[in-house]
Amino acid sequence: MDQAAHRTDGEERGLRRCPGCWKMLTVAMCMALLGCLQARELQGHVSVILLGATGDLARKYLWQGLFQLYLDEAGKAYNFSFHGAALTDTRQGQEFIAKVLESLSCPVDVAPGRCAELKGQFQRLSGYRRLRTREDYMALSTDIEARVQHEGLREAGRIFYFSVPPFAYADIARNINSSCRPGPGAWLRVVLEKPFGHDHLSAQQLATELGSFFREEEMYRVDHYLGKQVVAQILPFRDQNRKALDGLWNRHHVERVEIIMKETVDAEGRTGFYEQYGVIRDVLQNHLTEVLTLVAMELPHNASSSESVLQHKLRAFRALRGLQKGSAVLGQYQAYSEQVRREQQKPDTFHSRTPTFAGVLVLIDNLRWEGVPFILMSGKALDERVGYVRVLFRNRAYCTQNRERWVAGQSPCLPRQIVFHVGHGQLGVPAVLVSRNLFRPSLPPGSWKELEGRPGLHLFGRPLSDYYAYSPVREQDAYSVLISHIFHGRKDSFITTENLLASWGFWTPLLDSLAHEAPRLYPGGAENGHLLDFEFRGAQLCFSQQQPERLVPEPGSAPTPSAFQVLRATYRDSPLISAWPEELIAKLADDIEAAAVRAVRRAGTFHLALSGGSSPVPLFQQLATGHYGFPWAHTHLWQVDERCVPLWDPESNFQALQAHLLQHIRVPYYNVHPMPVHLHQRLCAEEDRGPQMYASEISALVANSSFDLVLLGMGMDGHTASLFPHSPAGLDGEPLVVLTESPSAPQQRMSLSLPLINRARKVAILVMGRVKREITLLVSRVGHEPKKWPISGVLPGSGQLVWYMDYEAFLG
Amino acid sequence: MDQAAHRTDGEERGLRRCPGCWKMLTVAMCMALLGCLQARELQGHVSVILLGATGDLARKYLWQGLFQLYLDEAGKAYNFSFHGAALTDTRQGQEFIAKVLESLSCPVDVAPGRCAELKGQFQRLSGYRRLRTREDYMALSTDIEARVQHEGLREAGRIFYFSVPPFAYADIARNINSSCRPGPGAWLRVVLEKPFGHDHLSAQQLATELGSFFREEEMYRVDHYLGKQVVAQILPFRDQNRKALDGLWNRHHVERVEIIMKETVDAEGRTGFYEQYGVIRDVLQNHLTEVLTLVAMELPHNASSSESVLQHKLRAFRALRGLQKGSAVLGQYQAYSEQVRREQQKPDTFHSRTPTFAGVLVLIDNLRWEGVPFILMSGKALDERVGYVRVLFRNRAYCTQNRERWVAGQSPCLPRQIVFHVGHGQLGVPAVLVSRNLFRPSLPPGSWKELEGRPGLHLFGRPLSDYYAYSPVREQDAYSVLISHIFHGRKDSFITTENLLASWGFWTPLLDSLAHEAPRLYPGGAENGHLLDFEFRGAQLCFSQQQPERLVPEPGSAPTPSAFQVLRATYRDSPLISAWPEELIAKLADDIEAAAVRAVRRAGTFHLALSGGSSPVPLFQQLATGHYGFPWAHTHLWQVDERCVPLWDPESNFQALQAHLLQHIRVPYYNVHPMPVHLHQRLCAEEDRGPQMYASEISALVANSSFDLVLLGMGMDGHTASLFPHSPAGLDGEPLVVLTESPSAPQQRMSLSLPLINRARKVAILVMGRVKREITLLVSRVGHEPKKWPISGVLPGSGQLVWYMDYEAFLG
Repeated sequence: MDQAAHRTDGEERGLRRCPGCWKMLTVAMCMALLGCLQARELQGHVSVILLGATGDLARKYLWQGLFQLYLDEAGKAYNFSFHGAALTDTRQGQEFIAKVLESLSCPVDVAPGRCAELKGQFQRLSGYRRLRTREDYMALSTDIEARVQHEGLREAGRIFYFSVPPFAYADIARNINSSCRPGPGAWLRVVLEKPFGHDHLSAQQLATELGSFFREEEMYRVDHYLGKQVVAQILPFRDQNRKALDGLWNRHHVERVEIIMKETVDAEGRTGFYEQYGVIRDVLQNHLTEVLTLVAMELPHNASSSESVLQHKLRAFRALRGLQKGSAVLGQYQAYSEQVRREQQKPDTFHSRTPTFAGVLVLIDNLRWEGVPFILMSGKALDERVGYVRVLFRNRAYCTQNRERWVAGQSPCLPRQIVFHVGHGQLGVPAVLVSRNLFRPSLPPGSWKELEGRPGLHLFGRPLSDYYAYSPVREQDAYSVLISHIFHGRKDSFITTENLLASWGFWTPLLDSLAHEAPRLYPGGAENGHLLDFEFRGAQLCFSQQQPERLVPEPGSAPTPSAFQVLRATYRDSPLISAWPEELIAKLADDIEAAAVRAVRRAGTFHLALSGGSSPVPLFQQLATGHYGFPWAHTHLWQVDERCVPLWDPESNFQALQAHLLQHIRVPYYNVHPMPVHLHQRLCAEEDRGPQMYASEISALVANSSFDLVLLGMGMDGHTASLFPHSPAGLDGEPLVVLTESPSAPQQRMSLSLPLINRARKVAILVMGRVKREITLLVSRVGHEPKKWPISGVLPGSGQLVWYMDYEAFLG
Repeated sequence: MDQAAHRTDGEERGLRRCPGCWKMLTVAMCMALLGCLQARELQGHVSVILLGATGDLARKYLWQGLFQLYLDEAGKAYNFSFHGAALTDTRQGQEFIAKVLESLSCPVDVAPGRCAELKGQFQRLSGYRRLRTREDYMALSTDIEARVQHEGLREAGRIFYFSVPPFAYADIARNINSSCRPGPGAWLRVVLEKPFGHDHLSAQQLATELGSFFREEEMYRVDHYLGKQVVAQILPFRDQNRKALDGLWNRHHVERVEIIMKETVDAEGRTGFYEQYGVIRDVLQNHLTEVLTLVAMELPHNASSSESVLQHKLRAFRALRGLQKGSAVLGQYQAYSEQVRREQQKPDTFHSRTPTFAGVLVLIDNLRWEGVPFILMSGKALDERVGYVRVLFRNRAYCTQNRERWVAGQSPCLPRQIVFHVGHGQLGVPAVLVSRNLFRPSLPPGSWKELEGRPGLHLFGRPLSDYYAYSPVREQDAYSVLISHIFHGRKDSFITTENLLASWGFWTPLLDSLAHEAPRLYPGGAENGHLLDFEFRGAQLCFSQQQPERLVPEPGSAPTPSAFQVLRATYRDSPLISAWPEELIAKLADDIEAAAVRAVRRAGTFHLALSGGSSPVPLFQQLATGHYGFPWAHTHLWQVDERCVPLWDPESNFQALQAHLLQHIRVPYYNVHPMPVHLHQRLCAEEDRGPQMYASEISALVANSSFDLVLLGMGMDGHTASLFPHSPAGLDGEPLVVLTESPSAPQQRMSLSLPLINRARKVAILVMGRVKREITLLVSRVGHEPKKWPISGVLPGSGQLVWYMDYEAFLG
């Protein structure tokens, strides 16, 4: 050990408290200070206990990582002991460990003689012990304390690395907590390896269990992807290139972000594990999601503060738009089911639905990223092994010269991208690439170097020479990096409980909704061709190539509503339009647009009153994205009914209107007429006369109080608007707008009255879903009994009534 | 003449009235019908008078176009006479014409003998006459009538083609109108060549003058670009491929549209004309704008109806967002000024500012095209001659395989584009190109054929083989096409008065604002390099390469506000921040965001009250586009003052707020608080108690009625908010909100009162522009005299007051 190793924790702390000291102190003063501090404080000792020390992960990565830790740190403020532990009996364990320790390698710049010396030192500090019972843990603790005392040290902390299957966690955790915690003044760090549960609930249970043994700050959940040098560089890169990126890192400049991990191997030999997890749990929920948050989060002012980074990551999670079934495409390589059958002794009829390939579209609902597609993709049995994050910038230039004269690095029209190349692929090394026509990046000069030219190598459509390309001076294994971060307490390289639950909260609904989906089969490797290419439309993903067996329209030929099969009939003596849900919505949206165009032509405005509930949501979406000719600027939007909650309450009908329609179109502020359910800071108080206010607003703006179109739904109890059975309000009489009581919460409602509805020029009633079948049948038979079935009172005086029912509601 | 030439106008009309007849009638019936119609009606005669028959245009294109008309039509329902006319004396003119007629060429498929025969016929029908005086026109008219009568014909119409300089238009038009109109039952068509004015005013005057001689339907203004076969195909293409394009032709799928006309020639020899016009008037205002409307307009249901097409074109004009100085970049080839000096005998010190190159960014404010950049570019002395319209579609796919395995025509990740290749360039022929990974287009099979392969030829980054490529079976000169359209009365191929004025209305503000701009000089040809490449940021264009002599930040490094030089001082004992306008706005926006973040952290909401007027507009834009971390969802927006006009009035302060801020951000509907100046269908009526309503809304929502930030301006008379000198309302007393009177219209206003403003936590006063210099000086010296200078009454009780002044306002 060299001289510096004798510096103590106290010195370190002293200097840390005075950040300017290094510069202020002269060398002489510094030496003097060292001298007197040295005499006072004891050197700290850190014990590292590797649980599962004879396992695969330990053999391949962890012992090497611990050796690296020793090399990096042992010459400094601490000394160490390393305890390999397992259930294996002592002799076998010792033999195993001895073999592993012999196979350790030094960094390339260490001479062989020196390496042997260092390995010898490390071997002397390392040993094996069997840890099974509580007594074993107590004995370990006693041994550590004895050693510390014996050597005149001070115990600094203990690291327990759980390289064991999750089912063993609880026992070990209990034993550590009860019998192997270090004494006061020393820290405990437990390191956990995934899987951390299978979905939100199981992750929560596991977290609660662990939480009963350890404090949050004691737990280090490893996602080894965060230890990959390039992944670990994402935030520092964003921080060090803040000036260049500030104007670019947003929806105005970023066209898309691709977060990709492709594998060529398949799951053979691991189907036991894989069959339970699949690609989303195995890769997307953890590795790719972590990367996503590093790219998308707001950069904290102090990017080296673990606390700030973790807070900002959590905020990024909150901004993610919820995933739906349509957010993903799934695949499974053809040989997979056969492998499962063979390895899991399943019958010949068994076919797995576990995806081995997934593409997912993630959207982020904040002002920075709104509308920018984040594409996450991972799969086995693909054509190459590669991992990368690619940020592609929009082309916002026009280049006047013929393309043949464009000069790479100068032309703003050539692709501009930043690639965090995690590893493998044609490049073969981890690297950060920045297009030369973007900016020259700054990377830590000591640890990153410019890549040498590789003529002929193209990456992401451009020759390597088009990029500023940097790779690490010294390639480091992810576990070495993470073990160093554990030792330094850098919690932002690990998954906190909040972070873990946020991630599962994000993925679980998708996993649930996909549970019974059949993935597309793919042959594997280069033969996949374009079979797994996928595209997005709005927030929906689909494979670009249709399944060959399906008859489909030509690419580019969006079917028009008129092309759909729509069933025309009558219902309660009024026209009935019935179709599959999508066609029905398309037809209704078309009819509403036609009515709007007619009304604007006739009267200059279109007054549209919309019901609440969930049925209209797809209609709103259709109107928002498919109807460019809609005269929104001349449309007034009214509410048919509203719940007595503030407009900003998630329960409010107005909220749905705002989220699914208003924010996508351009209805002038003053043409939007929310029901005044919230006046003078209270909800639907009689004395605030909300209904009267709304009625007079209608009278003032809507000619003859006759809406151009009123959209209604029908409840399973026969209610419509917020007019409920066996409740007289609003069924007849003078008031145009009334307060009513719903049988279900929130009870208080405001509603247009039947007489007002019946003054409309057109009333459309939208009924969808199998759950409506019963009431649809019933209402088809009843007469005019609005007190029992308010819907039966909808009979426009001189206007038209049309029923829109999907096949499930109508035919059951 | 062959047999078919004896069909009459009546037959044609008869058959046209019955579109199905061709199919319904048997050949026998058809022949019988022809026989009897022939006997009844006289054949129609059309006289074509080519004015300026000895000029360049006539010699190069128009005589050939008339010959083509003769070839196409003379064998059908009409016969013709062609009258070349000019001021040249008769003998000279006749000789000229004889020479031109001799040089005419037949289509390639006409045998030489037949060609000589046809030319002979055409020569016999053509002659020259001098047309100078009114008497000359009367004589022409008499001659035509005599000829028609002599030959037993019926006069169908007269076409006057004005191939003369604009200054001659009025005289000729007067003479035609007074002395050369055909008799009743026959039509008059006058064909006009650009320039049609120099700006909106001159175009209007010219149109008014012509309108006193001719009816709108008699005028055919030529834009020869509309006669180019590919340009003429744009609408038919959109119509015939409706099914494929319907889903694609919108902002969700189109990334950009480029409308380009590049020339290699310069203006040498034509600087007399060019110096007055420049590239925008010469090419963009007419050719490229016409193409723009063809691409952008809503496709009429009946795309072959001239009337509908013209109506839809006008609607497209109305949706164009107004151009501003920043919408264009200008260039001038280096030799231009010297050419002007030489040709126009200018002194050596003369430097022209006429642009010979322009790039313009056009945005369209409708739901179909919102946000899609339409890039118009034209220039002389560029590296190649080519004209095209390129519609580039967004890449909405992720391709799972390595790029090397992508198959053209299958991969959705390769560029997808539709190109209307007007002519020249590397392709050399007019063509319509559609990427094979898009759809197979349908083109009229008789007149368009698939282009043959051209190995090695790349267009727009892809080999020709990646496209479905079609070119015309027979290349036709634009004038031939247009002359045929004049003859058939197809007005949608011409520029109506409304269309012309709409186009000038669109371009004139830009031309005015650029009148004194110095264009960037460029060497010409391939040497231009990347000098003329340009980029857009929002609605602003700028050259990609900075002028070499300017010191600028690195590309990509948007300067951050903290990097600006900001002068800090005091003004009226309060902090003063002074800077150049851009820095000042950036600083103010930053300070507002910081205040917002603090307020939300402290209280959960941020209450911001904003003044009207023009100064805040750049601030709104800055907040809308540069502040991703702004907590809009928790911000309440209030108005400091409002004019008593409806909220949707262009004069309304709320309108500016809506246009420049609200529509870009996501403030929930219910957090926006417009002043209630418009209640019960009337404006600021005392009895509607608007101020009291607003005051109680403030009291209810804003803790202690203390806004977090109030943004004020200062008028040249020392007013602030809408509190005016020598008008007591709102200066003191109880009311929080008051009605006031402005010295300028609209007089009635609503305003927060001084006492309410002074309760704010922070008041920022923004003062910008040289015009404010005088009042700034004055107010710096006055004490607390709010009755004379209301601004002097702004003194927050416990809050902070900060002045933001740009250098022009502060230093003059």
